Amino acid sequence: MLIVMQPGATEPEVDAVIARLVEKGFDVHRSTGAERTVLGAVGHIQNSDPRIFEDLPGVFEVVRISEPYKLAGRTFQPRDTIVSVRGVPVGGEEVVVMAGPCTIETREQMYECAKAVARAGAKILRGGAYKPRTSPYSYQGMGVDGWKLQREVADEFGLATVSEVMDASQIEDALQYVDLLQVGARNMQNFTFLKELGKIRKPVLLKRGLSATIEEWLLSAEYIMAGGNREVILCERGIRTFERYTRNTLDISAIPVIEKLSHLPVVADPSHGTGHREQVAPMALAAAAAGADGLIIEVHPDPDNALCDGPQSLLPEQFTRLMEQLRIIAPAVGKRI
Amino acid sequence: MLIVMQPGATEPEVDAVIARLVEKGFDVHRSTGAERTVLGAVGHIQNSDPRIFEDLPGVFEVVRISEPYKLAGRTFQPRDTIVSVRGVPVGGEEVVVMAGPCTIETREQMYECAKAVARAGAKILRGGAYKPRTSPYSYQGMGVDGWKLQREVADEFGLATVSEVMDASQIEDALQYVDLLQVGARNMQNFTFLKELGKIRKPVLLKRGLSATIEEWLLSAEYIMAGGNREVILCERGIRTFERYTRNTLDISAIPVIEKLSHLPVVADPSHGTGHREQVAPMALAAAAAGADGLIIEVHPDPDNALCDGPQSLLPEQFTRLMEQLRIIAPAVGKRI
Amino acid sequence: MLIVMQPGATEPEVDAVIARLVEKGFDVHRSTGAERTVLGAVGHIQNSDPRIFEDLPGVFEVVRISEPYKLAGRTFQPRDTIVSVRGVPVGGEEVVVMAGPCTIETREQMYECAKAVARAGAKILRGGAYKPRTSPYSYQGMGVDGWKLQREVADEFGLATVSEVMDASQIEDALQYVDLLQVGARNMQNFTFLKELGKIRKPVLLKRGLSATIEEWLLSAEYIMAGGNREVILCERGIRTFERYTRNTLDISAIPVIEKLSHLPVVADPSHGTGHREQVAPMALAAAAAGADGLIIEVHPDPDNALCDGPQSLLPEQFTRLMEQLRIIAPAVGKRI
Amino acid sequence: MLIVMQPGATEPEVDAVIARLVEKGFDVHRSTGAERTVLGAVGHIQNSDPRIFEDLPGVFEVVRISEPYKLAGRTFQPRDTIVSVRGVPVGGEEVVVMAGPCTIETREQMYECAKAVARAGAKILRGGAYKPRTSPYSYQGMGVDGWKLQREVADEFGLATVSEVMDASQIEDALQYVDLLQVGARNMQNFTFLKELGKIRKPVLLKRGLSATIEEWLLSAEYIMAGGNREVILCERGIRTFERYTRNTLDISAIPVIEKLSHLPVVADPSHGTGHREQVAPMALAAAAAGADGLIIEVHPDPDNALCDGPQSLLPEQFTRLMEQLRIIAPAVGKRI
Repeated sequence: MLIVMQPGATEPEVDAVIARLVEKGFDVHRSTGAERTVLGAVGHIQNSDPRIFEDLPGVFEVVRISEPYKLAGRTFQPRDTIVSVRGVPVGGEEVVVMAGPCTIETREQMYECAKAVARAGAKILRGGAYKPRTSPYSYQGMGVDGWKLQREVADEFGLATVSEVMDASQIEDALQYVDLLQVGARNMQNFTFLKELGKIRKPVLLKRGLSATIEEWLLSAEYIMAGGNREVILCERGIRTFERYTRNTLDISAIPVIEKLSHLPVVADPSHGTGHREQVAPMALAAAAAGADGLIIEVHPDPDNALCDGPQSLLPEQFTRLMEQLRIIAPAVGKRI
Repeated sequence: MLIVMQPGATEPEVDAVIARLVEKGFDVHRSTGAERTVLGAVGHIQNSDPRIFEDLPGVFEVVRISEPYKLAGRTFQPRDTIVSVRGVPVGGEEVVVMAGPCTIETREQMYECAKAVARAGAKILRGGAYKPRTSPYSYQGMGVDGWKLQREVADEFGLATVSEVMDASQIEDALQYVDLLQVGARNMQNFTFLKELGKIRKPVLLKRGLSATIEEWLLSAEYIMAGGNREVILCERGIRTFERYTRNTLDISAIPVIEKLSHLPVVADPSHGTGHREQVAPMALAAAAAGADGLIIEVHPDPDNALCDGPQSLLPEQFTRLMEQLRIIAPAVGKRI
Repeated sequence: MLIVMQPGATEPEVDAVIARLVEKGFDVHRSTGAERTVLGAVGHIQNSDPRIFEDLPGVFEVVRISEPYKLAGRTFQPRDTIVSVRGVPVGGEEVVVMAGPCTIETREQMYECAKAVARAGAKILRGGAYKPRTSPYSYQGMGVDGWKLQREVADEFGLATVSEVMDASQIEDALQYVDLLQVGARNMQNFTFLKELGKIRKPVLLKRGLSATIEEWLLSAEYIMAGGNREVILCERGIRTFERYTRNTLDISAIPVIEKLSHLPVVADPSHGTGHREQVAPMALAAAAAGADGLIIEVHPDPDNALCDGPQSLLPEQFTRLMEQLRIIAPAVGKRI
Repeated sequence: MLIVMQPGATEPEVDAVIARLVEKGFDVHRSTGAERTVLGAVGHIQNSDPRIFEDLPGVFEVVRISEPYKLAGRTFQPRDTIVSVRGVPVGGEEVVVMAGPCTIETREQMYECAKAVARAGAKILRGGAYKPRTSPYSYQGMGVDGWKLQREVADEFGLATVSEVMDASQIEDALQYVDLLQVGARNMQNFTFLKELGKIRKPVLLKRGLSATIEEWLLSAEYIMAGGNREVILCERGIRTFERYTRNTLDISAIPVIEKLSHLPVVADPSHGTGHREQVAPMALAAAAAGADGLIIEVHPDPDNALCDGPQSLLPEQFTRLMEQLRIIAPAVGKRI
């Protein structure tokens, strides 16, 4: 932490700030310039709110300098983490594609989806059994029966599975049926839930909150990792902006930023990120070109009759075409499908 | 729902859209203009995503027209709801002030706070026992022991209490010790939690999410109310904007907007809304002038040594001064302290 | 500027950064801590992009510490600036109310408006002759004839005038007819225009840009002041947020923040800030309670037939009622109408 | 425009709204449903603010249905516009790369840049002579001498040129020296300037404003086109979001959205969009993968000593490598370099 004094700060003011810092357990380094004095404070700021110092007389600004996350950061671990999802390595050279319907509806629907996406090259089958809906009157999902169904179908095609878990009470079932437990955007800062996920030993897909900064996102990963679970995959799924032609704005630049700040794998969700079928393929290609470790894409054999998010689901043949395009693009950035 | 056709849409295209609407259970009214055709669709759109129709050939735009919340809206209940918090009516003529520290620390601290705020005219004692912190390394609160302590002290001064509940597992304890259960901004769309709160029979203070729209906020209130708990107080606590001189931007205009759209009481939190002590009083006065039904304000006898959010806490004497100013302002808008 | 080195930065890396700083004309103060080294750099960073240093090996973060504005800041001038608009002092104890129609339409309309607002206690007559419209097909204003008309009517009632100037080419006419030249939100960073306004000797009302930070706003004031014109009044008029029930979100907290950072007067525009008549009075009262030096409010004798922004205009009788409420509120914060 | 009545609206209320619509020159179509009545209003709403109707008794909501831009929209012109910049076609199959320094500094610098970018395959030389700077104390550019220099060097290498014009007063010079006149993000809604650009007969590169919606951006294009100049290229350059690790958030999804809504070419600026050299290449590749018609990229032979934006400039060899990657990616979306 750095305490920048005002240009005309008096000596007693500077001394008072130093005394306060020492009292709070910091080592202080003073740097007196022609214009102003700066105090460098080294120590643990965990429980010390920088604003305490901001309001002391003579203080101009307080600047936090440590990155607040540790386990999730590259400083702690320079080499890339590769998360194994039922044997599928996420975070290495391969762009791992997760695909399937938004919502698990019927065995037939899941079978058609799984067949189509497996054939086209996807490795993980997506599908929601518990749905976080803005309105209490919207369809809320088929629950654990959905997961059983997803498991059976995935096994038939040798696919791993990913599905959203909304609450600690659902974790036990999820551990039995789901390979990659997804935390939804609205739960990114549900801290009690994150702590529970820190206790398990299965990979977690952590979606970015709708208006979360990358730092907050990494701190939420830190909650899971601090509990002992290091298998975290980050998922960019679109942030809220002023634009209305897209449902959200998929922040492609988060991909190279995460790549720099963290060793964790990062994947993109162009389906929720855009909300419109016609934008899914361009944004999936963009994410791959920017270096994403994977993609999670909604595919539905009959999107017009899907229970949820049909308009952002690709048809199987569109998904197949997209996979072909991805195979051209991945090598340009040293990856492969 | 209204389906606006493109200027050059053909008759077969219009017919196909009508057929699709009827199939989905809608009654359709057709309006053919010189420039374009508009279809009005009446029915339950709960499980019907408007985007299904957006992607049909010839469709220009789909417009949702019903307000998606019912129990929380003024259409459903025109007269104001008054929520009784241990006998303190919130939502009537009185501007109810809730005050106390951010975090419950010690009996002495709570006693000093309670004495000061009760004497100045506050009716409800605030204080956090479970703290949602962005970083897993920050202080997480003293738990149920804090609530016991808050209860004892509040009883001594005849105050009601408000405190944050973070998870379904904490509800049982909260029911025993807390009069008004607060849902934090980061939990506003924790839907499984909201459903649990719908089952209890105690008032809930629902904070607005950091980037939530007013509609989403009312839909979250709807989740609680749909479960049977009609005692919801809304709390504006600042939204995320690009501004860095304030921690958040307290959206004062949400107060008259809620007043128009909903019968539920709305209060403001100028402490979290601004993050800086010097802005708390101006924003508290502003909220009262805009017609708020109450205020929730952080007060600490020794903010420099507070475990959390000291820099945004008022000193007891500043709080007393603020109450005097509020007594001047409230009558200007037909209210009183 | 402070250069924070990475935890493991080597001595040669630190030396290279110091050499680069010295080369760029900075004095450097080194502070070596247990965890990391911090370099304080004192000098003129005007033309030195901090990111130059960010990309040097071993650098963790670069932090700018000087406030970039000078003439507009309280550090430069601690006492409040009072701007005289044709003899009306803005920035002192009086809350100055500017009122009138959005757009100048006819002599009769202006006369009715001026009579009503003067009688109720307004001191400055607003009215637009040049209108910045998002669409090229919207009404663009009556031009200089409007200003002549506004001038005549204002003189009849002893009012000063305020009106928007959109371009350097309009300044000459404005100087003849308008007392307070308004810069619209979309022009806040039209730097060539700001420079021209720095050359004149009449007060300027500088509206905040739709997504501008307070720092950027003060820097735009600095552009005008650096040219020699110190008569700048800041006007908060609402920022863009995700909320759709209001046209913009009037950032009331900008008022106490500006009060702290700058000596310039700050006024609020609740008409554009909300866009709806029913929210104008609550927000005007809120701004006054937060300490605003003035208000600019749209009033129209026949808003239903106004050429522009009728729905956000108050009727004369609503304006009169608002003035009465303001007279109750102002004394609570040491002001008067 | 559609007027949606409240559920309990009375017959006289409906009649009053119809009368008002007819008075304003609309044809009205009434649709009476079980739940509510909807009025479709056909006519020119240019000078009729929808909020006029919103505030009438019994009205629930007013919905605008026409797209407000015409010349810029695909409805008006379904086939792609190809803009010729000194013979270089922008908007066709080729991804046109514009490259060069942020700021024109010296003949040598421009020569080095031009040589490098021409050799690597760029077709248009960028370089700023007038710089819009947030602070009045920052370097403001070398003016028309810069343009002369850029012209000479570009001619040597057979390149076209692009450069920012900040004001109507600079247009005459620009017409003489610059092939593609750039409108900066902060000038996107400088309407008097846009009107002037409508009068010329040279291509304009219109950057998106920092918080502009796509609709506002297209309406600004409409201002230029309505004046008679149809040669507009849109440039996505990053929008303001809450993220601090990037300077702006390059909205890649704007590319497919523009492709759908408009016939105008759209290019991306990954240099300003990210602000950091290491993110430029990933975002350039992403934009190409999403179907951009071109890229505008900052390249500097000695970025550490650049007068402006050095940290976001690529080195010539990085640019060459990027061009190779682009050559792999473009064919995946049916384009070529």
